[in-house]
Amino acid sequence: MCSSCEHVHYVNPLNVVGTVPFWQDQVLLCRRNIEPRKGMWTLPAGFMELGETVAEGAARETVEEAGAHIEMSDLFTLINVVQVGQVHFFYLARLLDLELAPGPETIEAQLFREEEIPWDELAFRTVRLTLEHYFADRRGGRFGFHCADLR
Amino acid sequence: MCSSCEHVHYVNPLNVVGTVPFWQDQVLLCRRNIEPRKGMWTLPAGFMELGETVAEGAARETVEEAGAHIEMSDLFTLINVVQVGQVHFFYLARLLDLELAPGPETIEAQLFREEEIPWDELAFRTVRLTLEHYFADRRGGRFGFHCADLR
Repeated sequence: MCSSCEHVHYVNPLNVVGTVPFWQDQVLLCRRNIEPRKGMWTLPAGFMELGETVAEGAARETVEEAGAHIEMSDLFTLINVVQVGQVHFFYLARLLDLELAPGPETIEAQLFREEEIPWDELAFRTVRLTLEHYFADRRGGRFGFHCADLR
Repeated sequence: MCSSCEHVHYVNPLNVVGTVPFWQDQVLLCRRNIEPRKGMWTLPAGFMELGETVAEGAARETVEEAGAHIEMSDLFTLINVVQVGQVHFFYLARLLDLELAPGPETIEAQLFREEEIPWDELAFRTVRLTLEHYFADRRGGRFGFHCADLR
């Protein structure tokens, strides 16, 4: 319903698109400078926009939030977050260098090894799940494509 | 912009979710009883709704449009249709029987072998692309996950 005029608009699920930017045995996380979960750590991600593909949106968010230079790779996770009407997509993305330039939505961007990940300070469940799959697949020597549903 | 009050609403891409319902060497298509592309053939699909996962939406559309009894399988294609702001998802779905009950949006539902597919009467490019991948993978003996962008 329009908050101005109370006209009813049909609302559909939204896509949230992001990446797992990796460098050797490390993954890039961003500390959020905006609500919700300000101060918590996240993979770079945001709402998909008109005029772009899922992968292009994921790359755009990675540049906007971390200023990272990346080479996009395969789709890695697709996670339905049913209660909030969102579908989250994370792509693997190889960091081409370590020059970062965090944008205004990010307090700091930092690389973490698996044992350094701030598991208790992650902003979203989809970020935790994606990181768990990433390090499990890395140990297994092969990266798959993982689907999951959160309610 | 709200058509009633001209309040600006942010518009994001929409997800269209459907299935490739298969039975032995045949695939189920539905002839559309609604615009756009009324009278053309399509895989069962429609807009994802709030409160469901991508796969649940695909299964719902298959029941609504064909009345088919299916067992959902893996995500098969993810196709960005950039110009119209849509992302199309098709899941493989095994038909459990041949009892069909097309809904009001469908003129008729019918099974087709590869050589019988009405290629020139398909409603959407994403349906054509998904069917091409389906029969190619079937010949190859292994079903993959295919991503594509249409502009």
